[in-house]
Amino acid sequence: MSVVGIISEYNPLHLGHLHHIKYARKATNAQGCICILSSNFVQRGEPAIVSKWARIQMALFSGADLVLELPSAFSCASAEYFSSGAVSILQSLGVVDYLCFGSEEGNIDALETAAEQFAYESESFKKTLKNGLSEGLSYAVARQKALETVLINNNSKIGPNDYNDTKVNNVISAIGKPNNILGIEYIKALKRLKSPIKPVTIKRIGEDYNSLERASTHSSATAIRKHIQDVFNSNSSYNQDTFLNNNLSKECLKVLLDEFSSGRGPVFPEAFESMLLYAFRIKSADEICSLPYMEEGLENRLKEAAMESISYNELVRKTVTKRYPASRIKRILFSMLTGMTGEFLNELKNNGYSQYIRVLGFNETGRALLSEMKKRATLPIITKPASYNELDNKLSVKLFEHEARATDAYVLGYPVPKERIGGMEFITSPIYFK
Amino acid sequence: MSVVGIISEYNPLHLGHLHHIKYARKATNAQGCICILSSNFVQRGEPAIVSKWARIQMALFSGADLVLELPSAFSCASAEYFSSGAVSILQSLGVVDYLCFGSEEGNIDALETAAEQFAYESESFKKTLKNGLSEGLSYAVARQKALETVLINNNSKIGPNDYNDTKVNNVISAIGKPNNILGIEYIKALKRLKSPIKPVTIKRIGEDYNSLERASTHSSATAIRKHIQDVFNSNSSYNQDTFLNNNLSKECLKVLLDEFSSGRGPVFPEAFESMLLYAFRIKSADEICSLPYMEEGLENRLKEAAMESISYNELVRKTVTKRYPASRIKRILFSMLTGMTGEFLNELKNNGYSQYIRVLGFNETGRALLSEMKKRATLPIITKPASYNELDNKLSVKLFEHEARATDAYVLGYPVPKERIGGMEFITSPIYFK
Repeated sequence: MSVVGIISEYNPLHLGHLHHIKYARKATNAQGCICILSSNFVQRGEPAIVSKWARIQMALFSGADLVLELPSAFSCASAEYFSSGAVSILQSLGVVDYLCFGSEEGNIDALETAAEQFAYESESFKKTLKNGLSEGLSYAVARQKALETVLINNNSKIGPNDYNDTKVNNVISAIGKPNNILGIEYIKALKRLKSPIKPVTIKRIGEDYNSLERASTHSSATAIRKHIQDVFNSNSSYNQDTFLNNNLSKECLKVLLDEFSSGRGPVFPEAFESMLLYAFRIKSADEICSLPYMEEGLENRLKEAAMESISYNELVRKTVTKRYPASRIKRILFSMLTGMTGEFLNELKNNGYSQYIRVLGFNETGRALLSEMKKRATLPIITKPASYNELDNKLSVKLFEHEARATDAYVLGYPVPKERIGGMEFITSPIYFK
Repeated sequence: MSVVGIISEYNPLHLGHLHHIKYARKATNAQGCICILSSNFVQRGEPAIVSKWARIQMALFSGADLVLELPSAFSCASAEYFSSGAVSILQSLGVVDYLCFGSEEGNIDALETAAEQFAYESESFKKTLKNGLSEGLSYAVARQKALETVLINNNSKIGPNDYNDTKVNNVISAIGKPNNILGIEYIKALKRLKSPIKPVTIKRIGEDYNSLERASTHSSATAIRKHIQDVFNSNSSYNQDTFLNNNLSKECLKVLLDEFSSGRGPVFPEAFESMLLYAFRIKSADEICSLPYMEEGLENRLKEAAMESISYNELVRKTVTKRYPASRIKRILFSMLTGMTGEFLNELKNNGYSQYIRVLGFNETGRALLSEMKKRATLPIITKPASYNELDNKLSVKLFEHEARATDAYVLGYPVPKERIGGMEFITSPIYFK
């Protein structure tokens, strides 16, 4: 069976995602579709608007055959950790032929060129990157500049060539866009693993990733979450909501609204406001330094901001600079919440990123894929909560325990107190979708 | 000038407290009255209903000449640490002649007898205490039984004597009551310090310390807080509140209601619910074991309760047993919140408890007392926030920093977000009361 892999957050799953799943199957002629799904904290450094258990259902309703977990350690992480974590899982399955992702670029060549440079950084690349960082640029911007320099230099060695100039310009213009950045990281991770999985990209339709524009039917997930928060803050009802009706499939909308009416959503970063202000006020500078994505001096900035701030948004706003973009700050905040440290993340990286394959949901086709995986997978497969006890490597136990802690913190963000019970990771079974 | 010291929480300051201050001055014929006032977390293991800054005003309005801080390290602590901390400050001032406290007993003799036994524990006392603890009794009850045994044994050695029997019975019946327990601890601390300060007690009028009965004019502080919480939860107004009018002086009521209308109160333990559930879910068993008042096995009980609970009250209820009373559990919870550890508390104990004298408020008489103290005090005096920088001993700096952290956590419990700014300990000056 030909299988396509998708790396996803579905926060929430909208019509653009539905289109992507359909395209991924069609373009690769795949009979099976495996989704790696972000856990309860997502890549932008925030809690997901509804729990993974709801988003698994959305994925299964929308064409995924098998849904696997991207643990919070990687899902609430920088583009490199996020991508490397997800690709390490896809690669470990032993059954995946393609990785299909959405991008602003829509053409794989430019992304491949950038990924090649990032995967095997040349000396001149490293030097330019370092200079950029010491000038106070953010990592993303400094890397973009370094790539630009290297590509232009390489090009001039080959000699003036219109085709190459255009290509260089394409690459350079591509690498500043959020979905392209992730795509490049996926390809880079595949290259480093010398993976046989073939990357395929699809041009994103609808609004930009971060766009708050409200298109009629293809709004970004950001715009949808913003809309949900506006309705929530105004104490209005989500029933008969035209905007949501236009942007989510009937099935996904039902899952979403069921979560809301049960009191398990929507979950916003603001729900963790007092926990975050508390933690960053009380923790010592040393403890803050142990978080991932830190660098010297940032701990004082964070502590001062926590002292002076009375809200989550103020805390973020007071910490952000050109060098420390909001996504990085938010990942640091929620790393504190879940108990992630830089040392632990590094340990995972040095040991091939993910330590297990966790099954979250599947249909009949997914069940067949699972049987195949059981023969070929290179990581242990967790199919039920009790499998956790069978993990025999310390690092995998530590990763699962981090996941359990992250969820114990996440549920405290549920709007209705009676749903905030801990320990869910140890009792929730995968979803079998008929 | 003859000076009487009072150890107080004023949570809030009611007519019973007012009576106590008047009596203390009159009975000792003192010209000066110094209050040691609990900081933002109080002895029962809870946040105070309004901040210390409001309660200082109440004390000054009610007859205190000088208000000094009992740091949260001691104010949110077991009876022994609370009393030893407060007495260590009174003793260090060099100007105090009397310590006057309220008690259920009202007669100093029985309390002196118990304090004598507790200050210098005999071998047979220690043995009986240990046996009681190993039978699963709480510390308070086991100690009560041990005292009973020792006193009866001592008595029988002297021979049957009606007077002695009555006296023994008096002591035994006295030591189970909350204000008597504190009184005994005060006397014990004075004895251990061989302090010249003379203990004086006054029988409490009105309802019992923990009573929820609503007397017309002498309700307990517990009943008053309960009333305030009921009004708060029902979204009613505190204006024209007959119950509060009957139980607080006009001045104290005004201070209280000003705090409420500014959004800095009332502060309830429930405001820290998500922070506490979060901390006890996420922290490792080792970290929980490092808290004060812990013993082996309790860390698992606390972690399990945090997992299963969705509210503060449920967390407490699920942890309490005969052996672990609610006050002990709550002190553990709020020790986590303020970053207190068993090791740090022990370090303070081994170094004479308090490390400085912090001035919170004073009137003209208080100012004269301060001048006198500056000549005689055996601990450094902090009169303004900047004095903190002049502390030259590491432990005193650590104690002040703990206090600052405790307040940074406390303000997160204010009902109105705009008041939740951190760093207040470094910018708030003592109150000069004209």
